[in-house]
Amino acid sequence: MKILEVNKLTDFKHLNLFSTKYKDKIGNIKSWIFASRSDSPDVMRKITNISEKNVPIADNLVSADMSGIYKPNAVIIVPFHVYYQKLVIIKEFRVPLGNYQYGFPAGLMDRGEEVEETAARELKEETGLEIVSIIKKSPTIYSSSGMTDESISLVYATCKGEPSIKWNEESEDITVLMVSHEEAQSLLQNRAIKFDVKSWIVLSIFAQTGKI
Amino acid sequence: MKILEVNKLTDFKHLNLFSTKYKDKIGNIKSWIFASRSDSPDVMRKITNISEKNVPIADNLVSADMSGIYKPNAVIIVPFHVYYQKLVIIKEFRVPLGNYQYGFPAGLMDRGEEVEETAARELKEETGLEIVSIIKKSPTIYSSSGMTDESISLVYATCKGEPSIKWNEESEDITVLMVSHEEAQSLLQNRAIKFDVKSWIVLSIFAQTGKI
Repeated sequence: MKILEVNKLTDFKHLNLFSTKYKDKIGNIKSWIFASRSDSPDVMRKITNISEKNVPIADNLVSADMSGIYKPNAVIIVPFHVYYQKLVIIKEFRVPLGNYQYGFPAGLMDRGEEVEETAARELKEETGLEIVSIIKKSPTIYSSSGMTDESISLVYATCKGEPSIKWNEESEDITVLMVSHEEAQSLLQNRAIKFDVKSWIVLSIFAQTGKI
Repeated sequence: MKILEVNKLTDFKHLNLFSTKYKDKIGNIKSWIFASRSDSPDVMRKITNISEKNVPIADNLVSADMSGIYKPNAVIIVPFHVYYQKLVIIKEFRVPLGNYQYGFPAGLMDRGEEVEETAARELKEETGLEIVSIIKKSPTIYSSSGMTDESISLVYATCKGEPSIKWNEESEDITVLMVSHEEAQSLLQNRAIKFDVKSWIVLSIFAQTGKI
């Protein structure tokens, strides 16, 4: 497979569509559209045919913040409360769903931040809790690479403190929940709840084994 | 939180951007852009102010396939091979990453298909393997609801047969891998590998416990 061209199709601030022309394994030229939070998705660095059409994109690439290439777009925290011995999840209004979703605290990385700093900042903002120690941290992994290059890092951490939403931003509508092994089992039975993918997998394991 | 308006910003075949106007919890009017595989995302059904501007969208909604509302966009299979006693993963070229990614077999649901049918069809197409029995199935869960309403169902299944890529589509560039508990541990140590979120979480559990 060879990436021949990448073109930016829209010009919005936080999210854009890109089209890619690529040569498939038997030589056919095909196209693929994807969404990206980045102005210069990594796939641009894979272009094998530099045509006149995509020179401006190559220029854009050169001026991109190269130090950020391997950092994820966002950090997701899997928080386990040391005192209550419960997993922390949030019920949050998600505009793209027009509905509440159960998931983990998460947020985009600020420029210059390290993954651990984003994790601590977002956990405090969204739940009022503080990280005690980091249990494990994923590398940069991909949310749904058929439709987007969005990448995240999953940070499993123990945490302490009392849940509070007083550090929430105005646009956030969050309820903090702490769930035991048994409570995880009953949440998963509730068909009215919309779960995020990560929280559903981790809650299922926690419900089965009591471990995360 | 109230959804006031949803507008389709682009007009591509497989993926589009939508903008949402919503009222936050303190009454400010804000906007949010997201990507969707659907022409009538569920959030349209949540519009509380029907303005002249979004009447065409409301019309579009009425003519949408209402039967499909609660079906996920895609199905992801977590296949465990009964004879080899190994977890099946695929190394696949992902155009939006311009790179190979390790993940699970997956695919979009065809119209009229049930989740189990998509799982069986995609597992065969991408790996040559056949489902023996379904271990568990998630409800419709969301990939990354800050940026998209994309939804999936995760199907954990036992499978049989010999791995083969002869049913791959031309645009697919796939290698089928079967990994033991120990092999999962060493794959996860390899920092050169790009993982999909679901496969990283499930492989980590499998590496730790030998279970999925």
